[in-house]
Amino acid sequence: MSEPERSREETVPNGGSPERTREEFELASIYVSDAQYNRNIFFDTSPQAVSLYLRYNHWLPQVLVYSFILVDLCLAIFEDPAVVPVPIWATMLVELLCLLVFTIRLVHYARVIPREKFWKDPKNLCIIVIIVLSLIDMIIYGALVASGHSAVRWSRVLRPLLLVNVTEGRQLRRAFRSIRNALPQILVVFLLFMFSLLIFSLVALKLFRKRGLKTVDGSPYFSSYLDILFDLYVLVTTANSPDVMMPAYNSSSFFAIFFILHLLVNTYIFMSVFLAVVYNNYKKYLKEEMRQLVRAKRHKMVRAFAVLQQQREGEGPVVSRADWNQLVQRVQPDFNSAHRELLWSVCDDKNQGRIGKAAFVQLADLLNIEVIALKSRPHPLLHLCPTFYLSAPSRLLCRLVQHRAFVVAYDLIILVNAIFIGLDEENPVIADSEWAFLALYLLEILLKLYVVEPRAFFSRHSFWNWFDTIIVVSALIATIINSAIKSTGGYSSRQILDIVFILRVLRLLRVVDSIKRFRTIINTLIRIGPAILTFGQLIIVVYYIFAMVGMELFKGKVTFFDRGSGDPAAFYCGNPRLNNTAFAQLNYCKNNFNDVASSFILLVELTVVNQWHVLSSGFASVTHKSARIFFVLFHIVVVIIIINIFVAFVLEAFFVEYSLEKSDLQTSLEKKIEELELGVAQEKLDDNLVSAMDSEQTADQSPDSRPALMFKIASKRYRTVDALLQRMFEADLDPEDSADPDDLEPNFSNPSFHPE
Amino acid sequence: MSEPERSREETVPNGGSPERTREEFELASIYVSDAQYNRNIFFDTSPQAVSLYLRYNHWLPQVLVYSFILVDLCLAIFEDPAVVPVPIWATMLVELLCLLVFTIRLVHYARVIPREKFWKDPKNLCIIVIIVLSLIDMIIYGALVASGHSAVRWSRVLRPLLLVNVTEGRQLRRAFRSIRNALPQILVVFLLFMFSLLIFSLVALKLFRKRGLKTVDGSPYFSSYLDILFDLYVLVTTANSPDVMMPAYNSSSFFAIFFILHLLVNTYIFMSVFLAVVYNNYKKYLKEEMRQLVRAKRHKMVRAFAVLQQQREGEGPVVSRADWNQLVQRVQPDFNSAHRELLWSVCDDKNQGRIGKAAFVQLADLLNIEVIALKSRPHPLLHLCPTFYLSAPSRLLCRLVQHRAFVVAYDLIILVNAIFIGLDEENPVIADSEWAFLALYLLEILLKLYVVEPRAFFSRHSFWNWFDTIIVVSALIATIINSAIKSTGGYSSRQILDIVFILRVLRLLRVVDSIKRFRTIINTLIRIGPAILTFGQLIIVVYYIFAMVGMELFKGKVTFFDRGSGDPAAFYCGNPRLNNTAFAQLNYCKNNFNDVASSFILLVELTVVNQWHVLSSGFASVTHKSARIFFVLFHIVVVIIIINIFVAFVLEAFFVEYSLEKSDLQTSLEKKIEELELGVAQEKLDDNLVSAMDSEQTADQSPDSRPALMFKIASKRYRTVDALLQRMFEADLDPEDSADPDDLEPNFSNPSFHPE
Repeated sequence: MSEPERSREETVPNGGSPERTREEFELASIYVSDAQYNRNIFFDTSPQAVSLYLRYNHWLPQVLVYSFILVDLCLAIFEDPAVVPVPIWATMLVELLCLLVFTIRLVHYARVIPREKFWKDPKNLCIIVIIVLSLIDMIIYGALVASGHSAVRWSRVLRPLLLVNVTEGRQLRRAFRSIRNALPQILVVFLLFMFSLLIFSLVALKLFRKRGLKTVDGSPYFSSYLDILFDLYVLVTTANSPDVMMPAYNSSSFFAIFFILHLLVNTYIFMSVFLAVVYNNYKKYLKEEMRQLVRAKRHKMVRAFAVLQQQREGEGPVVSRADWNQLVQRVQPDFNSAHRELLWSVCDDKNQGRIGKAAFVQLADLLNIEVIALKSRPHPLLHLCPTFYLSAPSRLLCRLVQHRAFVVAYDLIILVNAIFIGLDEENPVIADSEWAFLALYLLEILLKLYVVEPRAFFSRHSFWNWFDTIIVVSALIATIINSAIKSTGGYSSRQILDIVFILRVLRLLRVVDSIKRFRTIINTLIRIGPAILTFGQLIIVVYYIFAMVGMELFKGKVTFFDRGSGDPAAFYCGNPRLNNTAFAQLNYCKNNFNDVASSFILLVELTVVNQWHVLSSGFASVTHKSARIFFVLFHIVVVIIIINIFVAFVLEAFFVEYSLEKSDLQTSLEKKIEELELGVAQEKLDDNLVSAMDSEQTADQSPDSRPALMFKIASKRYRTVDALLQRMFEADLDPEDSADPDDLEPNFSNPSFHPE
Repeated sequence: MSEPERSREETVPNGGSPERTREEFELASIYVSDAQYNRNIFFDTSPQAVSLYLRYNHWLPQVLVYSFILVDLCLAIFEDPAVVPVPIWATMLVELLCLLVFTIRLVHYARVIPREKFWKDPKNLCIIVIIVLSLIDMIIYGALVASGHSAVRWSRVLRPLLLVNVTEGRQLRRAFRSIRNALPQILVVFLLFMFSLLIFSLVALKLFRKRGLKTVDGSPYFSSYLDILFDLYVLVTTANSPDVMMPAYNSSSFFAIFFILHLLVNTYIFMSVFLAVVYNNYKKYLKEEMRQLVRAKRHKMVRAFAVLQQQREGEGPVVSRADWNQLVQRVQPDFNSAHRELLWSVCDDKNQGRIGKAAFVQLADLLNIEVIALKSRPHPLLHLCPTFYLSAPSRLLCRLVQHRAFVVAYDLIILVNAIFIGLDEENPVIADSEWAFLALYLLEILLKLYVVEPRAFFSRHSFWNWFDTIIVVSALIATIINSAIKSTGGYSSRQILDIVFILRVLRLLRVVDSIKRFRTIINTLIRIGPAILTFGQLIIVVYYIFAMVGMELFKGKVTFFDRGSGDPAAFYCGNPRLNNTAFAQLNYCKNNFNDVASSFILLVELTVVNQWHVLSSGFASVTHKSARIFFVLFHIVVVIIIINIFVAFVLEAFFVEYSLEKSDLQTSLEKKIEELELGVAQEKLDDNLVSAMDSEQTADQSPDSRPALMFKIASKRYRTVDALLQRMFEADLDPEDSADPDDLEPNFSNPSFHPE
């Protein structure tokens, strides 16, 4: 890691309480926010570059760049072969605009960081190459199409790489790097697996070739080595089990042993070994990256400290409370002063009015701990008509609504509703009952709003309250529209009906929240959700590349005709070569590469694996046998590598959730919250955030005995994916690991992270 | 843990060097061997009970009991519905004999352990119940069959439980216990998964029921809730993807979103969560059991120590070398004196002639470390004709054979052979070439035998030497027989040809051994092999139970006819109800429950999952719709639980192999071996045991510079499955864990296991 210019830090006086300049705070806050979000950009520390860098990190250009990447990727919908055909000049123009935006962003980036850094960074070079190649391809394509030739838009394969190489694509880059690092190990296992497959195929060839066996459709069984190899590879994926075995098994029961042995060795053992190798390597490399990330974070905090530090007699350099306050205000303008005060009291636990380096370094992690401020406001009705709201019947109603029986009663209503939904909706009784259920659900929400302060009810973390309200209100609207259409035209629109049905069923999901054990699992899933999105991006990159290649290879080879139309072509997907193939018989015609939407759905089917051999044989018979390579390659890349990493990730995340206590930092923050008597009851802390409503009710119940503002730690939520990843490996990370041997700062001793 | 009678220990004098009685050594050696093999039997410590217990642990009765369990299980082959029909009285007689053997074994056990212990142990009660129920069932069945009624042999379901409840089935019991303990957690996830499935089915019902869609075979699509539920459950297993989606997808592309969402949630997320929960719980409970096992082992060693201890002035109780020697001689009669000396020198590292408790407790683990004594004997030819064997050409030959090029040359020969095997063997050139290859392989073995001392070549751990020799010699014999038959009758026997072919292909496996990276993976697999056998037993228990139930439910419903015979029944498996079902069309008739062999093969197919819905629908259509429950149950038990545990086990074993260094004990033993200059070169130690031949060659090369007997640690081999399991969790086990709060022995301080 290289040092930014050190000149600025030298301008800081060594004693007294100097007046800080705006630039100094700007620089320090950038360091802190980079540490908080794990940005590793070696920006220039001159004032202009810093303010350019601030603008570079603003959310607006980031969102813009992502939107234009999305637009660029979505162009595939409109380009030939198109879902929605559009003239070539239109897509070309939009693509040019996208490329322009990417170029501007890159130029902005180039002005922020030192020049030699810019040209050394492979991701910048990658973006430049992508932009240049896209331009060249567009020119060639335009020229060829204009002159009436057929042309291939080969540069479209490069588009998803923008997602990887854009500055914000850190997680994605890391995932790809982990895969790349694990490849050599995976390759060894893969070669051994292929060797085993070749041996089994050879045995099958010798055993079955001369026996004259026939498959179910009468073709010769296991006649050529390559076919056997393909069939046994498919058997490893279990997609053609037990069909591939049946002819041999029918001829003699003993042949079953061969296939069982093959499945045992190549499917069960080798596939487990693949998972083990992928998991192990992925974990190993990710852990190393996390270690470096933690190290870089501490460095940045030390730099921020160096900017703001003052020398006091008898102690090392410190940061004063005023400076700290101003820094946090800059980094997190949305924190209120009470929240800042809480954080300060955690850092400065001896109440000295200043903090040393060790306490300062914690700040980046403290900022990442989500603390929810629970404001206990009185109910608005208490203001409007206090006598009524505090009357005995009103109090009784409040107690009723908050009683456990209320929840149980509504769970029962949901159960009855589920049965009604299952029944035929054309029965008038059933159709009318829907209004009753809607009324009941609305009543529930209104009753809860009567008891709970509305802003607390609709607070940011009350997931299920939002869910309920949105579902019930949209169901109400859709049902009204539906019956309005029905009463006027007599017919109801199929689309609106579908939406009504789905909304009705979604309402049932609410039951999950009232069973605690379910809630725990769901919350774990919700928590690892954002991190899974990284895998979503990974999958999209790989799918997009395969879809583009697949479309160029197979577009128009297989066409879907509605069988009801009576067109005989419907029975062989418009391609006579498919006559009597399993592909056509199973009516797979719509599984084709004729546009990007179909391609993606087909790739999902290939990911699910089952029947992939039928699909690949179908495309092989309309083109060439070697087309199977495309499908085998897809299987190896997506199923053997990426899905295994997905499984590894879910496993690891679950293990962390199961085994890890709250981290030390969170505990100290919690302790402080309790000390300050700001906390809500401990048992409420165990419940999760998603059920924050309950605790807010508690807060509402006794407004006098507690301060007007209370804090609660969203202990298990992570603001950034990096934070989750760091926590995943935290247990294995050495806390002393911040020691960097090639650190150039002489006064940078190991910041002992947890002073006690 | 309760204490055995303390009377014996009190008879040991507290000072001097007393003469030990035979009974004392017997008792001590039993404690040590129990500790070594992790037997936890609370035997009576009276001399008669001890000698009875010795006989109980003898290998002969153990093998006998396992053989009779095997016979009992195999009776299913001969009982109705039989693979090989046999009169009822014969199977009944054999079964009675089996039950008699089990009873005798149980009575023997009852006389070894205290009475109250016997009746408290659930596994004894289980065996008694199984024996009694089997007898009752046999009487009822015999009576019913004799009176011409049909009867069900329901007690056969209980037979595999004998495997679990027999004294030696420790690993299997532990595996079952782990599963049972993990069940509550699995159940919660399963319920949530079922809830999700019910919700998705409800959505599917509302979306598709009224659309009038048809499946490929023209039947209505998604018409009833239960059918949808089953179809979507099958889709979770991916067995009917994408077929189940196609009708909806063909009607509108948007419906694909529903199925993709379903797959994402229920297949990818929930199945990963199942693996995570199973893995986590399995590991957790197994770790707890291992902790207790280690504790029990140390207790037993402390007891053995108490039997042999003598009091010395100025120090605690010790065991003298003479007593120790006699003890080890009793426990491991196959260890030679040099091996004992080596172990003693590890225990008594200060060379005091006596060891304390801490060093003594190590013994059980030391005995489990496999040390190979490499005897460097001169080559017999050196004795017979030394001048010839030491002549220049002979020495050149030896160097040639040991050269790397020799291995490469033979790898090339194997490659060429592989191509020849792939070609048509009826070509006379190819057929004759086989003799040339055989001659080359024989020559290789003879050359190696010329260089290496034959007993070293065929040492117990030279896996590949044994493999080569057996394969080549059997191929030679089979080829000679084959050509003998051919030259006399003109026809060759198909069976012998098959064997010849398989042997030829197996020869190619040798290549794996010459590539080091492959060897590492193979060795890992070989090492976890014995532990995987526990899963083999687990699978057999579950399969057997399902096979017995399946045979009673479905026997004779589906029959296989050779389609070549022209019998029309062949096209509907002899059951008109199967006409036009996918089951009959795919010619699955031989997948039936008509005998125990077919049942097992069918269950393997169900484990592989693909097409299991076709199989279950087939059996449902010949019996009743509810027959599907049997198949769904099988899927839940075997695929969701047992296969996941298998994957978890392989993962864990691989992680241990990847991450764990040699354990401390082995390192100290190794250090001692090196100190005594008994070790072979260090780089040879890194190579694995399986390649021990190499190091033996080294040993042979320099017979003068080294002692006649050398030791090498088979560092990565485990004598017992328990040792592997213990090592798997060793890293997480607290070494201080031997402290037992409810331990009654007052002088039993924590034996600090690794004194330094």
